[in-house]
Amino acid sequence: MMTHWTLGVDFGGTNIKFGIVGSTGRVHAARVLSSRGIGRPAAFIEAVADTAEDLARSVGLRPSQLRGIGVGAPGPVDVERGIVYSMVNVPGWRDVPLARQLARRLRCRCVVDNDVKLFTLGEWRFGAGRGAQHLIGLTLGTGVGGGLLLNGSLYRGCAGSAGELGHMVIDPSGPRCGCGARGCLEAHIGTAAILRLARQAAARRAGPLRALLRQAKGRLTPELVSRAARAGDRGAQQVWQEVGRALGVGMANLVNLLNPERIVIGGGVANAWPLFAPVARRTLAAQAMAVPARRVRLMPAQLGNHAGIVGAAVLIWSQP
Amino acid sequence: MMTHWTLGVDFGGTNIKFGIVGSTGRVHAARVLSSRGIGRPAAFIEAVADTAEDLARSVGLRPSQLRGIGVGAPGPVDVERGIVYSMVNVPGWRDVPLARQLARRLRCRCVVDNDVKLFTLGEWRFGAGRGAQHLIGLTLGTGVGGGLLLNGSLYRGCAGSAGELGHMVIDPSGPRCGCGARGCLEAHIGTAAILRLARQAAARRAGPLRALLRQAKGRLTPELVSRAARAGDRGAQQVWQEVGRALGVGMANLVNLLNPERIVIGGGVANAWPLFAPVARRTLAAQAMAVPARRVRLMPAQLGNHAGIVGAAVLIWSQP
Repeated sequence: MMTHWTLGVDFGGTNIKFGIVGSTGRVHAARVLSSRGIGRPAAFIEAVADTAEDLARSVGLRPSQLRGIGVGAPGPVDVERGIVYSMVNVPGWRDVPLARQLARRLRCRCVVDNDVKLFTLGEWRFGAGRGAQHLIGLTLGTGVGGGLLLNGSLYRGCAGSAGELGHMVIDPSGPRCGCGARGCLEAHIGTAAILRLARQAAARRAGPLRALLRQAKGRLTPELVSRAARAGDRGAQQVWQEVGRALGVGMANLVNLLNPERIVIGGGVANAWPLFAPVARRTLAAQAMAVPARRVRLMPAQLGNHAGIVGAAVLIWSQP
Repeated sequence: MMTHWTLGVDFGGTNIKFGIVGSTGRVHAARVLSSRGIGRPAAFIEAVADTAEDLARSVGLRPSQLRGIGVGAPGPVDVERGIVYSMVNVPGWRDVPLARQLARRLRCRCVVDNDVKLFTLGEWRFGAGRGAQHLIGLTLGTGVGGGLLLNGSLYRGCAGSAGELGHMVIDPSGPRCGCGARGCLEAHIGTAAILRLARQAAARRAGPLRALLRQAKGRLTPELVSRAARAGDRGAQQVWQEVGRALGVGMANLVNLLNPERIVIGGGVANAWPLFAPVARRTLAAQAMAVPARRVRLMPAQLGNHAGIVGAAVLIWSQP
């Protein structure tokens, strides 16, 4: 019987995560490398080769004996041809036939997919989405990403770009988005929007947020906004209310359109979930139609940092 | 070999359309009855029975010899169990097991589905959507409805309600919608919104619109707004610009999310397509992401009044 051991790789702008995934979804051997210095294609392939050697050994295999290697990339990917079109904020990636290059170097099966799609696949198979037939994965961070799992499989659309829910316009007079449009969901709840709102709040009145910000020498992060909100800062709390409201509108649109069983919410900003979940739920209930609103469950992701690695393995296993 | 001849029935608030559909999608014998008097379940079933007898005879068959009878209903339907949960603006329909009742009465296979889903299925198989794998059907009228055809089959979601794109919020400070929410697509481009905008335009200045409205004794319709726009009425033209803009925002969201090959636009208001298509296309191009925007084609529906009847037959043929 063929082994299940698969190497999952999750390529991020800051870190690249590796892990050997077993049949139960457990990550057996994990490693995190800084993206610095190995971000470009040739260096990345060498880093995967070295790491595959080490991690495969930990389960008594050579890389070529693994079931395969799956890579999640932060950008648009042609899954069938294994091509990374580009990576958000990572230079040097332009129409790179990564799957073929990796397969040649490592002599094993390699697949590449968009990182949010793999997050969705991982959570569906082993995390908060287990057992669902219709699931939306939503990641909150610098970008707001989405993966659609419909009828029990990833839905990609005609050019593989389906799921770009961060660029759903929810208010045409809302803030300008990095994509050029105005009022996208990402322009309301992406990290940059959260930090902008929080700076305004800190400027408006004294309180825990302003104190924490001074302690941090002005280096504001979503975590800091969360801490301030938990410490009772009214302005910081209002930031999360605003995030919850915009997210609720976006999710109501998704629920009306796709009638999913679950929406699984992950990404760094999802750590503040308890702070914005109540408003998000209320807004969803008020805006969505009754039948689909009753059926959907909102759930925080369960696999933490491993969802992408695990999803990469699930993708390998699902190949014929 | 089993016959293809199938009776398609399209239940509308004003008319009920019937037609015998052959294997090429041609409607062989058609009939239109007023919904008045046969709108309630028992009377409707008798009307279908009578009409089936007449129309089946025109192809030399008895109703029980047809391949089946497919019915499109304006409301939520449980396709698997053949239950009509309710019909918009038609009293007397509450959890009616229509498919079973019809099958018992007519002794042939019967299926029921939502009318916009059948419109989408019909246009996909024989109309503007031929050959597409990923298609969105969009109907413009009193309501704004949607059907999603993904990976070559109708997508329904977990409660069968998927496709409610008329209730996508595109502007939270927009007009109040009949569903209770604010700023839904339907609240911007449904017939009521078009007529409200047109009345305001007619009140603001004299011109063809005000003249036509006086001729029609104040009975305003979307057709009249189209005629006024074609006659050079600036206010009426602006109404269609507004419709095109809102539709473009809604379609940009759909394109980003679902990356479809085509969007097929039908329904009564789509007769004004040339008046609002340019703005809709421009808005879509400006708001949607480049990759999916390049791939999608917007097309007016091709089957006219027959799309629902034909879609009902396609649904019958697709049953195992």
